[in-house]
Amino acid sequence: MTKAYEVGLERCEANYVPLTPLSFLQRTAAVYPDRLAVIHGNRRYTWAQFAERARRLASALHHLGVGKNDTVAVVLNNTPEMLECHFGVPGAGAVLNTINTRLDPETVAFILEHGEAKVLITDREYAHTVKAALARIDRKILVIDVDDPEYSGPGELLGTLDYEGLLSGGDPNFAFRYPDDEWDAISLNYTSGTTGNPKGVVYHHRGAYLNALSNIVSWGMSHHSVYLWTLPMFHCNGWCFPWTVAANAGVNVCLRRVDPKWIWDAIETHGVTHYCGAPIVHSMIANAAPPAWKSGKAGRTVKGLIAAAPPPAAVLQAMAEIGFEITHVYGLTETYGPAAVCAKHDEWATLSLAEQVRLNGRQGVPYHAQEAISVLDPDTMQPVPRDGQTMGEVMFRGNLVMKGYLKNPAATEEAFRGGWFHTGDLGVLEPDGYVKIKDRAKDIIISGGENISSIEVEDALYKHPAVMAVAVVASPDPKWGEVPHAFIELREGASVTPEELQQHCRQFLAGYKIPKKFTFGPLPKTSTGKIQKFILREQARSQEAIE
Amino acid sequence: MTKAYEVGLERCEANYVPLTPLSFLQRTAAVYPDRLAVIHGNRRYTWAQFAERARRLASALHHLGVGKNDTVAVVLNNTPEMLECHFGVPGAGAVLNTINTRLDPETVAFILEHGEAKVLITDREYAHTVKAALARIDRKILVIDVDDPEYSGPGELLGTLDYEGLLSGGDPNFAFRYPDDEWDAISLNYTSGTTGNPKGVVYHHRGAYLNALSNIVSWGMSHHSVYLWTLPMFHCNGWCFPWTVAANAGVNVCLRRVDPKWIWDAIETHGVTHYCGAPIVHSMIANAAPPAWKSGKAGRTVKGLIAAAPPPAAVLQAMAEIGFEITHVYGLTETYGPAAVCAKHDEWATLSLAEQVRLNGRQGVPYHAQEAISVLDPDTMQPVPRDGQTMGEVMFRGNLVMKGYLKNPAATEEAFRGGWFHTGDLGVLEPDGYVKIKDRAKDIIISGGENISSIEVEDALYKHPAVMAVAVVASPDPKWGEVPHAFIELREGASVTPEELQQHCRQFLAGYKIPKKFTFGPLPKTSTGKIQKFILREQARSQEAIE
Ligand SMILES: Nc1ncnc2c1ncn2[C@@H]1O[C@H](COP(=O)(O)OP(=O)(O)OP(=O)(O)O)[C@@H](O)[C@H]1O
Ligand SMILES: Nc1ncnc2c1ncn2[C@@H]1O[C@H](COP(=O)(O)OP(=O)(O)OP(=O)(O)O)[C@@H](O)[C@H]1O
Ligand SMILES: [Mg+2]
Ligand SMILES: [Mg+2]
Repeated sequence: MTKAYEVGLERCEANYVPLTPLSFLQRTAAVYPDRLAVIHGNRRYTWAQFAERARRLASALHHLGVGKNDTVAVVLNNTPEMLECHFGVPGAGAVLNTINTRLDPETVAFILEHGEAKVLITDREYAHTVKAALARIDRKILVIDVDDPEYSGPGELLGTLDYEGLLSGGDPNFAFRYPDDEWDAISLNYTSGTTGNPKGVVYHHRGAYLNALSNIVSWGMSHHSVYLWTLPMFHCNGWCFPWTVAANAGVNVCLRRVDPKWIWDAIETHGVTHYCGAPIVHSMIANAAPPAWKSGKAGRTVKGLIAAAPPPAAVLQAMAEIGFEITHVYGLTETYGPAAVCAKHDEWATLSLAEQVRLNGRQGVPYHAQEAISVLDPDTMQPVPRDGQTMGEVMFRGNLVMKGYLKNPAATEEAFRGGWFHTGDLGVLEPDGYVKIKDRAKDIIISGGENISSIEVEDALYKHPAVMAVAVVASPDPKWGEVPHAFIELREGASVTPEELQQHCRQFLAGYKIPKKFTFGPLPKTSTGKIQKFILREQARSQEAIE
Repeated sequence: MTKAYEVGLERCEANYVPLTPLSFLQRTAAVYPDRLAVIHGNRRYTWAQFAERARRLASALHHLGVGKNDTVAVVLNNTPEMLECHFGVPGAGAVLNTINTRLDPETVAFILEHGEAKVLITDREYAHTVKAALARIDRKILVIDVDDPEYSGPGELLGTLDYEGLLSGGDPNFAFRYPDDEWDAISLNYTSGTTGNPKGVVYHHRGAYLNALSNIVSWGMSHHSVYLWTLPMFHCNGWCFPWTVAANAGVNVCLRRVDPKWIWDAIETHGVTHYCGAPIVHSMIANAAPPAWKSGKAGRTVKGLIAAAPPPAAVLQAMAEIGFEITHVYGLTETYGPAAVCAKHDEWATLSLAEQVRLNGRQGVPYHAQEAISVLDPDTMQPVPRDGQTMGEVMFRGNLVMKGYLKNPAATEEAFRGGWFHTGDLGVLEPDGYVKIKDRAKDIIISGGENISSIEVEDALYKHPAVMAVAVVASPDPKWGEVPHAFIELREGASVTPEELQQHCRQFLAGYKIPKKFTFGPLPKTSTGKIQKFILREQARSQEAIE
């Protein structure tokens, strides 16, 4: 028997619109046309002006023949143009591919080829790399130059069009093209390549919309936040914050470069309230804090999200000391950036700072719009017991998981095996159900048959005052199989010996976990502040061969 | 040519879950199991306990054979059981039909029949009405009694089962049945019947999810709000707040009855931070405010949403005087409750209180998750100019619009004509794009060929200190066609003559708008605090006939 609800209640134009973050810009530009949207050097755009520029961009791209499922790649810093691309490119129906500005020409060329970019928008600063990348490609790509007045360094113009010229030809009233389906692609993000092999992650409008809202709800952001762009927008679309700030009618404070002086200038001049970054960014901010903040006399707080790598306890502690409210989130390129949050509990405030730092150092629970995060045994696909001990693989499930990897159905299928997205991170479930990551599958060190978490060893070393950054990798060892090898970058002016560090570690670690080898010097990092352990691992291996 | 994005990026279990507010309860019960979820008299439930009760309910209903697209009707106050039904009923896959507790047996019987209720959960307080309603129905409906210890008045038990007994037989670990499709029905709400003819509005899981989140984002709610249940949950599912409070891990402070003493007790004892209500509820709260609040010494603020009827300026002013932060929202049963908000601008704070009240009295702009609200000419479907003058019909479009009217495809089609939902409210667009409602189509008074907005006349009368509540309707007139007739409920102890009121109106209104007739006495209201003008209109007409 047909039930009453089964007839006459279908979708129509009045009651169904595909979810898309484009709607946030429409709304904010209409409701708060005169509010400040963007600050960059001496430039200022209101939300009306910003929307107009984004519409001009969409219109111009449309007239260039760019449309649905076409890729528009960009090599841009955190500038107004980069923000505009987050609306203008999908507003033309196309897919935004933000490329990491620190990549070498070979990788840039690989991405342009693999992503099938039809148009490339590029900042003059990267002319050298981009030119070399383009030289490797046979296909014609339309190149558009951004020549930011805030940049005065070297770099030629490569394109046939310049960005401001393009915009001036666009229609300021162009109606954004909404996706036909909220499952349509909105962006293409290559993974950081920490494990050596970047994959093209495709986002859809639905996920971008939901993650943008979830940033507000899960972080508890108030209206009109002043958001500082310390996190590169080429990384997971800046964790979807270009869309979040639009939804929130906030202010985007642009930053061409993560420089502690610039950051503190912005915090003090523009009244920054929110920012995001990898642990290294936060520790840089704490180190450079002006005296008023160090002494607790700033009279206000700044809220930060920390993720991209396991936050060392020492960093969380340093942030608490300057009065910043840090929230720990966790995610991957595959999950639109953060899709888990270490949700705080009021009761924690009464605990010792060390205990608070430990609790906040966990990767936590799902974002509001993510269905689940758990730690499963990848063979049985059953959750591990909540004992804080039994290791398994961290997995996600829900609407904040990518469409899949571009042109890689095998990797996509493997990633989604058993109905969960497999992160490649290893972790445990604590008794309260919070996920704690112990290590990445590829980074775990197996010594004499025992698992050593490289993160645990790094955390111990971070507690030494001379240590600025550290990475611990496996070094092959004839007796133990593997032993921990620590690569250490010291603070300016500091010095320490391997013996002193081993001695220091004894307070925190069992004997077999203490690094046997030490190398001092700058660490190779991705521009998102992640240490490239795969390079160190090779180094550890070849050093072994030499010795 | 197939583009790269068109293959290998399909939905699967890992990356797609239908949107449903059930997920908010799952998350909050997992993340904050020990936080307080519900306060009712001496009863307290944590989120873990609340979720357990909702699961037991879902499980018990499931075992009674209740499933997808079955209607479970409830006649309940704002009690824990009512909250539980908002999760337990959809958690069994079924559709929740909350029935207004103030309706007469005839209307209740009509709704039970029209909505095809299979189960009825009813509070003992309404036994008299419900028994009479059931007597009118041939079909067998399974009746479950709620016998709330907080209620000690008359009323027999009608059912074959009692609610607590039902729950004790349910499985506390029952897995909620998620909708097969986010478009599946979650609830059935009959309109208030202000215009005399209640229609069965069907909501889906997607809209309930999005409106619940949008309440948080559009209102700017912080985590863990303490929410007082002054708004009946039988009205548009309490504007989706049972789901909002779950998403927000807040506290539900239940209230069996809207009584100013109980409300102030709750505000002061439980630290209420948020509540919603019709204008009459707010003015009742302001009238009863304790001295500390009246003199601005309360030391904190409470946030309220006002809607359901046009808020008289006098009410907004009274709320400002006791230091409450009131946000004006607007919507209909057909839009899940509020789907528009009078978004405030910082600059308004520098204006006179009268001007602030005027600005905040507008119905505003779309909610974050609603695509659009506008004022259109219903013939051309073009927006009226933004001149604050040209009248048109207020219309909505987007994801916060109902599936349609149950078993009424003709009314549904008519409501959605031209790709917009037609509200039946008449309004203008102000120069800043904000919608201002002038009247309901059915309430406008046409006198000597001129339109008179009944709302404008009421607003003027509300400014008189003797007036507690007022409704102005058209009275047939041989010369003018219609003239305004004012029905007035006076404040306790106050008295005033028609002539004094006409004199008072001269300050605010053109002569032809001043009521020619006055009737004093209590006004007929729906239990959501809406005045039933259709009754007054009949009265005005028959009075005319007698005179
Ligand atoms: N809060 C966090 N705590 C611990 N690790 C984190 C956190 N946030 C992110 N990570 C690490 O970053 C990874 C996601 O990084 P991203 O998607 O940028 O690329 P990648 O995994 O480093 O690169 P590739 O997949 O190409 O190897 C996670 O799998 C995890 O290992
Ligand atoms: N903020 C507001 N300002 C003015 N009017 C409002 C506001 N909020 C709600 N309303 C009025 O309430 C109406 C919606 O009420 P509801 O859906 O509860 O049923 P109803 O329209 O009164 O009943 P019925 O549709 O059966 O006649 C709106 O159409 C509008 O007239
Ligand atoms: Mg990865
Ligand atoms: Mg109506």
